[in-house]
Amino acid sequence: MIENSTLVLFGAKGNLSRVKLIPGLFHLDESGQLPDNMKILSVGRQTSTQEDWQKEVKGMLDKKFKDGYCKKTYKRFIERNIYHANLTEDPEAFQKFSKKLNEKKLFSQNLAFFLSVRPSDFALIVDQLADVGLLDQTKGWKRVLIEKPFGTNLKSAIELQESISKHLNEEQIYRIDHYLGKSALQNILITRFANSILEPIWNNTHIDHIQITNHEMLGVGDRTIFYESTGALRDMIQSHLLQMMALTTMEQPKSFSPNDIRDEKIKLLNAIKPFGKNDFNNHTYRAQYAAGEIKGEGGVEGYLNEVGNQDSITETYAAVKIFIDTPRWKGVPIYLRTAKRLNASGTNISIKFKNGDSLIGDNNNWIIFDIQPKESTAIEITTKTPGLDENELRPTNLEGFNRVDGDESIDAYETLMLDLMNGNQSRFLHIDEVTAQWKFVDPIIDYWTKNKVKLNQYKSGDSDPESSKIIFDDPSQFWR
Amino acid sequence: MIENSTLVLFGAKGNLSRVKLIPGLFHLDESGQLPDNMKILSVGRQTSTQEDWQKEVKGMLDKKFKDGYCKKTYKRFIERNIYHANLTEDPEAFQKFSKKLNEKKLFSQNLAFFLSVRPSDFALIVDQLADVGLLDQTKGWKRVLIEKPFGTNLKSAIELQESISKHLNEEQIYRIDHYLGKSALQNILITRFANSILEPIWNNTHIDHIQITNHEMLGVGDRTIFYESTGALRDMIQSHLLQMMALTTMEQPKSFSPNDIRDEKIKLLNAIKPFGKNDFNNHTYRAQYAAGEIKGEGGVEGYLNEVGNQDSITETYAAVKIFIDTPRWKGVPIYLRTAKRLNASGTNISIKFKNGDSLIGDNNNWIIFDIQPKESTAIEITTKTPGLDENELRPTNLEGFNRVDGDESIDAYETLMLDLMNGNQSRFLHIDEVTAQWKFVDPIIDYWTKNKVKLNQYKSGDSDPESSKIIFDDPSQFWR
Repeated sequence: MIENSTLVLFGAKGNLSRVKLIPGLFHLDESGQLPDNMKILSVGRQTSTQEDWQKEVKGMLDKKFKDGYCKKTYKRFIERNIYHANLTEDPEAFQKFSKKLNEKKLFSQNLAFFLSVRPSDFALIVDQLADVGLLDQTKGWKRVLIEKPFGTNLKSAIELQESISKHLNEEQIYRIDHYLGKSALQNILITRFANSILEPIWNNTHIDHIQITNHEMLGVGDRTIFYESTGALRDMIQSHLLQMMALTTMEQPKSFSPNDIRDEKIKLLNAIKPFGKNDFNNHTYRAQYAAGEIKGEGGVEGYLNEVGNQDSITETYAAVKIFIDTPRWKGVPIYLRTAKRLNASGTNISIKFKNGDSLIGDNNNWIIFDIQPKESTAIEITTKTPGLDENELRPTNLEGFNRVDGDESIDAYETLMLDLMNGNQSRFLHIDEVTAQWKFVDPIIDYWTKNKVKLNQYKSGDSDPESSKIIFDDPSQFWR
Repeated sequence: MIENSTLVLFGAKGNLSRVKLIPGLFHLDESGQLPDNMKILSVGRQTSTQEDWQKEVKGMLDKKFKDGYCKKTYKRFIERNIYHANLTEDPEAFQKFSKKLNEKKLFSQNLAFFLSVRPSDFALIVDQLADVGLLDQTKGWKRVLIEKPFGTNLKSAIELQESISKHLNEEQIYRIDHYLGKSALQNILITRFANSILEPIWNNTHIDHIQITNHEMLGVGDRTIFYESTGALRDMIQSHLLQMMALTTMEQPKSFSPNDIRDEKIKLLNAIKPFGKNDFNNHTYRAQYAAGEIKGEGGVEGYLNEVGNQDSITETYAAVKIFIDTPRWKGVPIYLRTAKRLNASGTNISIKFKNGDSLIGDNNNWIIFDIQPKESTAIEITTKTPGLDENELRPTNLEGFNRVDGDESIDAYETLMLDLMNGNQSRFLHIDEVTAQWKFVDPIIDYWTKNKVKLNQYKSGDSDPESSKIIFDDPSQFWR
């Protein structure tokens, strides 16, 4: 059970809060993870009576748990939920807010601030919290969770960091990458470091290359403005895919403690080999979806029409080839790719092994971590085809599923909120990780923005564009 | 398609022939594996008209294929089947037999003799075949398949070999170990040598120990006389289990060619470390089943009552610990065990890996080849338990099944009969394998016969007797 604390939710009326945070907290309450006296103080910019807010919370739960939910938990949960209006036009808003939180009988003074707000407001809110003394740790700990993205490039990330670190030390800052809350990502480390059979082959002597993939069938939907200024590289590769790579390739930590794990991830991310001037054209690839059809349904619009900008050079498909400059990984290409509007959805890490001294040509050995939608670990090996044919071989998937039925409901955000309240930073980004990630991505953005790398097109609903294979080391290679 | 040939079946009225060989040949015919003109000449010691014999064959098929079989194939198959009575009392029996086979229009002179007869008759029949010129290879090849066992100890095996090698060279002799015909055993080599991820960990740096197990729920049944003079060690370990060990531990052959595979098996079997005088008591273990219950049904008799000999010291449970004296295997104990009347049936090879630098204590990494009843390859690793508990671990079985439905019907003997007619010796024992196996087993039989190792008892229907663990190197070890 976690220590008593108060969870302060900025942006409580936003989409994340409605769909993930509030229902997630309910689910944690249901499974007995929340201390009896813990309050959830939701902060918004509109006025709202306590009664109205509780109705609103109930609406969120009704929408999320269509099959119903526990009445007893509801009674307890609804009592935890308190609303506070922080009116933008009121110059004394934060003073009033501080006064409210200082009602010690009601609120534990261990304060966890979850900033689910516009990125441009992160620094401002931290300033204001500090101004009214809410980050003062003499009466209980104070922690601030900052939603993604932490900056939009290296420069802005450093500025944000400089601003908030005036009031917070690193142990108080919880930078989110919600993929780290996924059980499947946790399992990468467990699988690698709790199984001694993997370590001997987890290196450039035995690994041919690695593919880390996130594919979506969905397009940008109604997030056109956000997406136009972001693109696939920044949205997915800078964050989730680089983190998956770090977990897959980092050295063994001294222990599974949060600091030991983050230390090794930082070292790994800092060891990414920077691109030389001539690398961008064959180490990076970008494309944009055109009109097409998804699951046989035609008439799907292209990106340019969706965003209403025929000149947009924002990529919806991004792929990069990375080399890591360590003895373990020297010479092993790591391919990261992400795409919208492809013919299938799925996130996975696929590790291809070299053929070595195998008695057959290509022995097709892979280890695959499926992250979503299914969550599994698989080893693909070659076995004999049943029957009389002497040495007819076939690939066989040795697969084990990580999840059991009923566990689907444990969302990454639940894990991360518990971590926040428990003071466990292992699933949050250290500032050195964020800056290392921007350091890698910034030059690509720069190069692409100057339009020096061709922006390809692909039909909505197609598989990976043929042209994407330009980044492969080996022409016989294929996207998995 | 194989070359046209004649299959000559000695012991055609015996149990093996009825249940496995004749139905197996039918099945091969059905799948188009037998040349049009190939005849199956069954030889028995009783007279029988051709008509009666065909009736008898039909009876075997009716019994085996209860769901019916292809009429068209039956018409073709029954025409292939010819009976010849080789009367024991007739001094000219083999001359007549030779004359029969010399009907060149009827019989291809490529002759494959399948000796499914009493072991004491092997040498005699070969002598007689030679006497009447039937082993003369000037008109077509001549091959002799010899059923198990090849000798009952090293001395008799050498004598048998000396006798038959007067008339046959090694390329003509097919010594059977029907386990080698099992698809699952073939798959061991494929899995090991067609997958480069396994070779780096297939050695004493990474492997802790190996368990090779054959368990049966059945008792000796009506084979009491045979079993009394044989025992579990001779019946299973000397043959099938040592062969499974050889396939699991042999070095990589130059190719998958029959000779290259056998060469490596021979080297391996010759590298078994002989027991020293003091090893027998903690490297070998034997026991005999007592009365008990199987699957909840009581009143199951003990071995002594079944064989009607209260003084019998024949073992129905045998286990040995083997070390192989090569750089790859130095120090890795290999446990072979076989038992009748246990609580479960199953044959498998289980390879336990060392804990190495794993971040948890015992990481429980196993590779398991299930041979029967199910046929699968599995890798057991440790993964994260789903849910919120941070590092709660559990073993996960990554498993792939080698067989698909419908392939169950391909019996080891079908494979081996085709091999015989194809001239492929890879799934038959070289004389050097047979002698190496007896060289290992003989001293144990000797020691046991002199009653120097305790003969334990176990209740029918129990699991492995606790006392069997005396042969373990590590007291925390368990039978898998």
